[in-house]
Amino acid sequence: MKRDLTPLFAPRSVAVVGASADPSKWGNVLARGALRGAHRRSVFLVNRAGGEILGAPAYPSLEDLPESPELVVVSVPAAQVEHVVEEALGVGAKAIVAVSAGFGERDEKGRDVEVAVAERVRVAGAVMLGPNCLGVFDASEELDLGWSALPAGPIALVSQSGNLALELARLAVAADLGFSRFASLGNQADLVAADLVDSLAVHEPTRVIALYLEDFRDGRALVAAAARATVAGTPVLLLSGGGTSAGARAARSHTGALVSNVRAVGAACRAAGIVQVATPKQLVDAAQALLSPGRPKGRRVAVYADGGGHGVVASDVLAAAGLELPRLSESTEVALRAHLPDTASVINPVDFAGGGEQGLASYADVGRLLLEADEIDAVLLTGYFGGYGVDTPALADEELAAAGSLADAAAETGGTLVVHTTYAASPTAAALRRGGVPVYGDVESAVAALALLAGRAPAGEPLTPADVDLPPLEPPAPGYAEARAFLADVGVPLTASRSVTTREEALGAGSELGYPVALKAGELLHKSEGGGVVLGLVDDDALGTAFDEVTARLGPQALSVERMARVEEGVELIVGARRDPRFGAVVLVGLGGVYAEILDDVAVALAPIDESTAERLIRSLRAAPLLDGARGRKPLDVAAAAHAVAAVSRMAAACPRILELDVNPLLVTQHGAVGLDARIVLTGV
Amino acid sequence: MKRDLTPLFAPRSVAVVGASADPSKWGNVLARGALRGAHRRSVFLVNRAGGEILGAPAYPSLEDLPESPELVVVSVPAAQVEHVVEEALGVGAKAIVAVSAGFGERDEKGRDVEVAVAERVRVAGAVMLGPNCLGVFDASEELDLGWSALPAGPIALVSQSGNLALELARLAVAADLGFSRFASLGNQADLVAADLVDSLAVHEPTRVIALYLEDFRDGRALVAAAARATVAGTPVLLLSGGGTSAGARAARSHTGALVSNVRAVGAACRAAGIVQVATPKQLVDAAQALLSPGRPKGRRVAVYADGGGHGVVASDVLAAAGLELPRLSESTEVALRAHLPDTASVINPVDFAGGGEQGLASYADVGRLLLEADEIDAVLLTGYFGGYGVDTPALADEELAAAGSLADAAAETGGTLVVHTTYAASPTAAALRRGGVPVYGDVESAVAALALLAGRAPAGEPLTPADVDLPPLEPPAPGYAEARAFLADVGVPLTASRSVTTREEALGAGSELGYPVALKAGELLHKSEGGGVVLGLVDDDALGTAFDEVTARLGPQALSVERMARVEEGVELIVGARRDPRFGAVVLVGLGGVYAEILDDVAVALAPIDESTAERLIRSLRAAPLLDGARGRKPLDVAAAAHAVAAVSRMAAACPRILELDVNPLLVTQHGAVGLDARIVLTGV
Repeated sequence: MKRDLTPLFAPRSVAVVGASADPSKWGNVLARGALRGAHRRSVFLVNRAGGEILGAPAYPSLEDLPESPELVVVSVPAAQVEHVVEEALGVGAKAIVAVSAGFGERDEKGRDVEVAVAERVRVAGAVMLGPNCLGVFDASEELDLGWSALPAGPIALVSQSGNLALELARLAVAADLGFSRFASLGNQADLVAADLVDSLAVHEPTRVIALYLEDFRDGRALVAAAARATVAGTPVLLLSGGGTSAGARAARSHTGALVSNVRAVGAACRAAGIVQVATPKQLVDAAQALLSPGRPKGRRVAVYADGGGHGVVASDVLAAAGLELPRLSESTEVALRAHLPDTASVINPVDFAGGGEQGLASYADVGRLLLEADEIDAVLLTGYFGGYGVDTPALADEELAAAGSLADAAAETGGTLVVHTTYAASPTAAALRRGGVPVYGDVESAVAALALLAGRAPAGEPLTPADVDLPPLEPPAPGYAEARAFLADVGVPLTASRSVTTREEALGAGSELGYPVALKAGELLHKSEGGGVVLGLVDDDALGTAFDEVTARLGPQALSVERMARVEEGVELIVGARRDPRFGAVVLVGLGGVYAEILDDVAVALAPIDESTAERLIRSLRAAPLLDGARGRKPLDVAAAAHAVAAVSRMAAACPRILELDVNPLLVTQHGAVGLDARIVLTGV
Repeated sequence: MKRDLTPLFAPRSVAVVGASADPSKWGNVLARGALRGAHRRSVFLVNRAGGEILGAPAYPSLEDLPESPELVVVSVPAAQVEHVVEEALGVGAKAIVAVSAGFGERDEKGRDVEVAVAERVRVAGAVMLGPNCLGVFDASEELDLGWSALPAGPIALVSQSGNLALELARLAVAADLGFSRFASLGNQADLVAADLVDSLAVHEPTRVIALYLEDFRDGRALVAAAARATVAGTPVLLLSGGGTSAGARAARSHTGALVSNVRAVGAACRAAGIVQVATPKQLVDAAQALLSPGRPKGRRVAVYADGGGHGVVASDVLAAAGLELPRLSESTEVALRAHLPDTASVINPVDFAGGGEQGLASYADVGRLLLEADEIDAVLLTGYFGGYGVDTPALADEELAAAGSLADAAAETGGTLVVHTTYAASPTAAALRRGGVPVYGDVESAVAALALLAGRAPAGEPLTPADVDLPPLEPPAPGYAEARAFLADVGVPLTASRSVTTREEALGAGSELGYPVALKAGELLHKSEGGGVVLGLVDDDALGTAFDEVTARLGPQALSVERMARVEEGVELIVGARRDPRFGAVVLVGLGGVYAEILDDVAVALAPIDESTAERLIRSLRAAPLLDGARGRKPLDVAAAAHAVAAVSRMAAACPRILELDVNPLLVTQHGAVGLDARIVLTGV
């Protein structure tokens, strides 16, 4: 259900409860901000003491206001919040911004006050931001409740951290960017991130949505909302905390949030087309890139600079980022020569060799030629351009004109141009940005932007969960044999096996399956650690001895005799699924065997996925070339592996009681894929 | 031989030949710069036209000067350079700065003018910088020949690119840093980078040496000089161009330099203890870190911030960089509580939870407690600190005082403190830097600095080449059998083999060695590509058939019958050596087998290395855990592998005619290491 957030961002009237005359209080910041919008709407300040605050009358309570406030900001001690919200809803408020913190705990009657208040708000048909939030901001509405520091611009920011929002704001300003809206999420008792994303996706001035989240709440709802926004043309950027154990520890201590596993967050981003970043700088850098029109079709980049050093350094950084620097075509080289001195180099990177000083228009001319070149997908200008006007004021106008022509060339050709300049705060840099060209102060950021636009960096092509209605599935009874049978039922082939309880049955199974076989104690969760697995039994003698030894050590029980697979003939994968508390079933595939830990080569997706998505998931592994027949080997049966991965994903999605599931290894050979071991962990077991 | 560069950086008198009155000419910039030092030394301007330039008399030639100039700057057309240098040496000049370019080519008589001029300079007992250079600068001498834009400070910069030097200067200024000396290297016809490094290592105001190089010239001399500087306490930083093929193409086109292989440069840096960086920003960031006194003993970091978001993000970035965030000890937690509000979190990361506003001294108090904590090696303050005074001027003094106390705490405890702040250009940030604390504007840079200081980032522990006198070694005759014999001679064990020419000999060898065997055509360089290798021959029949087939296809020749090794019982490495044109013999070890390309797991060192260095080299591979018995396997014989690597390195160092050498694979098992194939490429063959 999409919530109507008009009363939150564009209210006809606002009341600030807890408005303060003390400039050190947040209630003062909120009141000052609210009053700045007094020419757009009615603004009322509420303070029990009455009197006057910031030159405006202070009303003792909401009930004393001359008109009903559409938005009520609540900045009062925790104990009074419930009462104030009741009062607000009573006088007809449609949106609450709950700044107050500390009422998430249960009261003396064991009631969760935060949940109760949120429920009251929903029943009243209103919405609530927070509690424990720092306010809202809407640039075009001139709604400023706490965030006057934000300049206007195309970014909508939804954040669970005030100081990070401040850093993002400063970085955005340095990149000549600003904000359309800001919402401090707080504890998300009522409105959650997904609600904000849904609203921002249809907010005309918003061209990119930036999220800082520690708690994803209903993760699938967020994924759906972000996917809708992305498809509708508004990219979503996510900076998420708690990706590592230390980060998670911090996040838990910060908002009491249950932090989602970092891999589940990654899967969610892949599913929704969200661009995931790790730092505030990366977020603003990516926003600048995504706000530009350029979307290169490939990863062939042309670099140009005045001075070879910058071209050399940029070339190395580009190559390290997986981008290509092809030589230019002869016709491009010939065309370039006409604009450059004889000493210039017109291979890629192009080096003006001092040609800049002979006429700054050459920056635009060369840029246009490279943007037009068929052999090139994107262009990087790196180095000094932007500094002519700063260091030699007489050149300022010529440089500005060249910047304008260069931006025009990018717009007219539809090509992708990214600029790195030592002078990123110059008027020339600002002119380029106004013309839609992303400009960065360090070459690594410019290259990261190119990699992002070329789809070489997060998120890549979305890995969308299948939109299917799966009938709920009963989980298997606990036990190894039961897990095997369950997997076989849903379509994951496992190596041939027999469940045995006596020595005689074991030897019969050995003969029937064909030696060599393995013997496994079925009841242990981590069988190999308990000494419950004996591999490579080559005949009756070996199997019999192993049976005696294992039953003597672990006691009589059902054992599994299994045909040994020839692992050297294929590649071992790990296929698994986990239930994430926020994002639900997540399917995982990775390289198995002895190199698994070193490579840490794992790909994840929200479950369920179909066979073709499963194949893309497998092929996204770094080890994928091994499956296609590296070093003269024949290609392996990737389709069979994909079938198993898809089956696992469907099972995990249909059976919520499955907490963890591993098929490890899944041996992929030239003619199929077969699981050699399996494990299922259920909730509540 | 260390060259005396006093006449270059601290001349008693300077003449600028080619001084110009035209402000758009470099000869004007040089003249203006030189005249700024006229209160320190005699400054003469030389221009054939005579008259007056910038208010000073212009002499028609060097011979007309009233006294002998110690340093002569030559900025004249290429055709006149040789004559001017002759004249300069004739009047007693001891240093030449050759700005002029374009005389590197041979003259009409086929003579390399650049080489001839350099030779004349050396014979005269003088030194020459350039040609094709942009000048020199010495802050304490007030010597400014072209680089007045440089602020004074502790960094000595040696660069082959003018515009990169400019970018480095601007980045340094933004980090409150400056330069002690600058030398533009140009073509290094006489003075090379190593000469500059040797001189800078004993230059008192220089505390860190920064190099931008495209051409390493005598690479071993540079390594020796950099190692001396590093050991003497002056760290050396290297930004080198041409690490990738596109970068190399650019570098070649820029200075005509013969670019060294990127891996050789890496080996050189490891040998010399040079910190290698990829961008100007990384260079200045690393310089700031290395200029601070902190050198953590381990990688346990404590993070603190006001606001959980910054702590969460920093934690994730630190973990990604291989640093640890342990929980704090109970005693530290208790001590911290005394300085923070009840809502604060005192686990790691520490979150003030608004405590900052209650008293900025807590930033210093908490910092000191963390710096003193035994369980912590380094401290990161991240987020808003630095912004109090900017956003709330009334807090400026309090914040500055806290910054001072915090810097004192770092100095007094001898601990390592690094700061990230949203307000990196604030007076508070400057105060921290003055106190020796590195301050960065983005958290990723602060974390990179910590990783560098903790030895988790380039260069790590030096891998020093062995200081041994190896008797020169005659290379083997061309051929596979000869290469095998040569390797066995120098101590690299190879799998048992027999050289055969007839079917009968082949079958005899098969029986003698024991099946299965391999059959190889010895004369092909890339044997497997030519179909000259047949593996896994299990009996006489198979071997005989293979012999017939190979000789029918490739013609009669000496073939090699070799015992097959059980590769599944060990780990395959690649061991090799290359002769680099600048750095000499480089030894390489990497993971072999089918995972080699995916992992691209290779380590290099300058040859020769001894056995213990070879073992460190092997253990620096990501795949090293496989050798120590990953996943329950027994440890492999790393000492035997190290022995083979050291032997290869000695051979490559002693035998300059070996261009390339591969032992691939070297199979490391529990009881030894054995080469299964080998290849040697000689120069001139």
